[in-house]
Amino acid sequence: MLTVTADRLRTIGHRIFTSAGTPSDIANHVVDSLVETTLLGHDSHGVIRIPSYVAAIKQGQLLPAAQPAITRETATTALVDGNLAFGQIAATFATDLAIAKARAAHLAAASILRCNHIGRLGEYAERAARAGMLSMIVFGAFGAGGAAPFGGAGRVLGTNPFAFGVPSSGSHGPMIADFATTTVAEGKLRVARAKKKPVPQGWIVDKQGNPTTNVEDYYSGGSLLPFGGHKGYALSMVAAALGGSLATGGIPGPDLPGVRGTFVLVINPEGFRPFQEFAASADALFETVKAAPPASGSSEVLIPGEPERRERAKRLAEGVPVPEETWNQLEVVAAELGVSSTCMFAL
Amino acid sequence: MLTVTADRLRTIGHRIFTSAGTPSDIANHVVDSLVETTLLGHDSHGVIRIPSYVAAIKQGQLLPAAQPAITRETATTALVDGNLAFGQIAATFATDLAIAKARAAHLAAASILRCNHIGRLGEYAERAARAGMLSMIVFGAFGAGGAAPFGGAGRVLGTNPFAFGVPSSGSHGPMIADFATTTVAEGKLRVARAKKKPVPQGWIVDKQGNPTTNVEDYYSGGSLLPFGGHKGYALSMVAAALGGSLATGGIPGPDLPGVRGTFVLVINPEGFRPFQEFAASADALFETVKAAPPASGSSEVLIPGEPERRERAKRLAEGVPVPEETWNQLEVVAAELGVSSTCMFAL
Repeated sequence: MLTVTADRLRTIGHRIFTSAGTPSDIANHVVDSLVETTLLGHDSHGVIRIPSYVAAIKQGQLLPAAQPAITRETATTALVDGNLAFGQIAATFATDLAIAKARAAHLAAASILRCNHIGRLGEYAERAARAGMLSMIVFGAFGAGGAAPFGGAGRVLGTNPFAFGVPSSGSHGPMIADFATTTVAEGKLRVARAKKKPVPQGWIVDKQGNPTTNVEDYYSGGSLLPFGGHKGYALSMVAAALGGSLATGGIPGPDLPGVRGTFVLVINPEGFRPFQEFAASADALFETVKAAPPASGSSEVLIPGEPERRERAKRLAEGVPVPEETWNQLEVVAAELGVSSTCMFAL
Repeated sequence: MLTVTADRLRTIGHRIFTSAGTPSDIANHVVDSLVETTLLGHDSHGVIRIPSYVAAIKQGQLLPAAQPAITRETATTALVDGNLAFGQIAATFATDLAIAKARAAHLAAASILRCNHIGRLGEYAERAARAGMLSMIVFGAFGAGGAAPFGGAGRVLGTNPFAFGVPSSGSHGPMIADFATTTVAEGKLRVARAKKKPVPQGWIVDKQGNPTTNVEDYYSGGSLLPFGGHKGYALSMVAAALGGSLATGGIPGPDLPGVRGTFVLVINPEGFRPFQEFAASADALFETVKAAPPASGSSEVLIPGEPERRERAKRLAEGVPVPEETWNQLEVVAAELGVSSTCMFAL
């Protein structure tokens, strides 16, 4: 494990992306997003993604200079064509559009199609919360993916994550929740596989839909399971409808193995009551749950988003831990793109 | 266990409610809602509630002739004062208002305060789906309730349920999901208590926040747990913010032990694409997951809402099973209100 500063990761990422044909301002945006996600402790969605983004650029699935565009809009809704731009660029565009519409119309939503990986969904919930808005961000996929439906086998759903943001005026907010509707995302299987360790019951089923703790069963055609049984499955289906069907109107078939898209909903509390009145009540909610005595094995009750903010402060102070494997992959990509090795080693 | 027809339950309920001062049309509405919920198999939210609704009328918490009113509204949002009417009346009013606004503005939401028990949340999702709309219905409570936060002890959150509805044009829809953000609702604890049986791990903690399978620990100050750990907890917090803080702006205190309310969001797919295009893609989603082979121990994959529709067909054909205890409680309430006993026995 190496320890590097966030600034160093930003510089490395920026040089890699610009060397791959990304305009400087776009590279800054994407790298800031990935480094921020890494600082928050969500390593699976952070700088570890740089090599796969570069691979997508090389394959033509990601157009590094592209910008999203509005395909259709009303006062409250917008259909955004991601135009195969970086997902972060498309999702930020859609979120800002929904925030602007919600300022005027109180509610707004944007659906994004032809969108690359948008990173951590909570980033957009945080953006809306900074603007004083509640939000729900959903990525949904069906027809292809890694997850089985409740009671079934086979990879017919994505990990279909949700994020929610709730602004407040106090020190415990904003609340930022961000989770996959599968028990775990695939990244945790990769870790278990590398360590040759069994996974807990409830994470995966094998190809035939039998419960298993052998992570290799996933890589032989098995699938991830929804969290919480039928409840997580229901949420996954909602994500597939909002993110997939609403954004794309797609029907899986020979030309379209999987239907997938993103849905961003923004709620302006001023549609219901003055912001300060809502925010004071949200503060009271956070205070109320934090005042609950800790359960056995717990030291305190945390608001969703608090663990990430603590990890961020720690990593800013102590540096960001980067696994050797991730670092090596960054070096390989940098070398392939002709990025000066001083960038990796001398900073 | 008795077996009675839905019509008989409707007649009994109508006579009880009208005898308790409910206008006939309101009694019809509430009884139809409760009997429909019973037909769908959600007995805990069905006719079993009649005695507690009558008790609420007697205590002045439920005003049986009251009608909800709009406190504040915009083109997309409304704050509805339930005016302590039957919750079903207030929630139907708010749902219809949101549907009408969403027809014009594509997105709409209504928050309801001073609202009694609204019954099964899925009812309102179904109403929106029949109008061709997606929907999310949330009831949220904090400061009082039966549930602990993740990592904590004590009853600081409600069971904070969510419902989602997705319309489609095919035979598998609409999809109606409806679930508490606790592992189970309190009704299941009552059943276990009556049978003197232990409950599974993960349902409850005792007063000190220790895991327990002894249901009596719940009734000695214990609490329900969120489903799926931090994920269900996050959803519960979102429900508390949307249902509680947005609807009421309330802050728990000596005069207000608990903050609670309802939030209804309606999404018109026409804001994004023609209804038929969305509905065909939603159908494809349902077909895709239903085509997945069943997992071991499962006979088929079901769409959320399908199990309830099957139970409804069965109960319409075979009659509605009513536990002796529920029947006895209905008899007691009927007798107290002077409802002719022929209503109970001779129909």
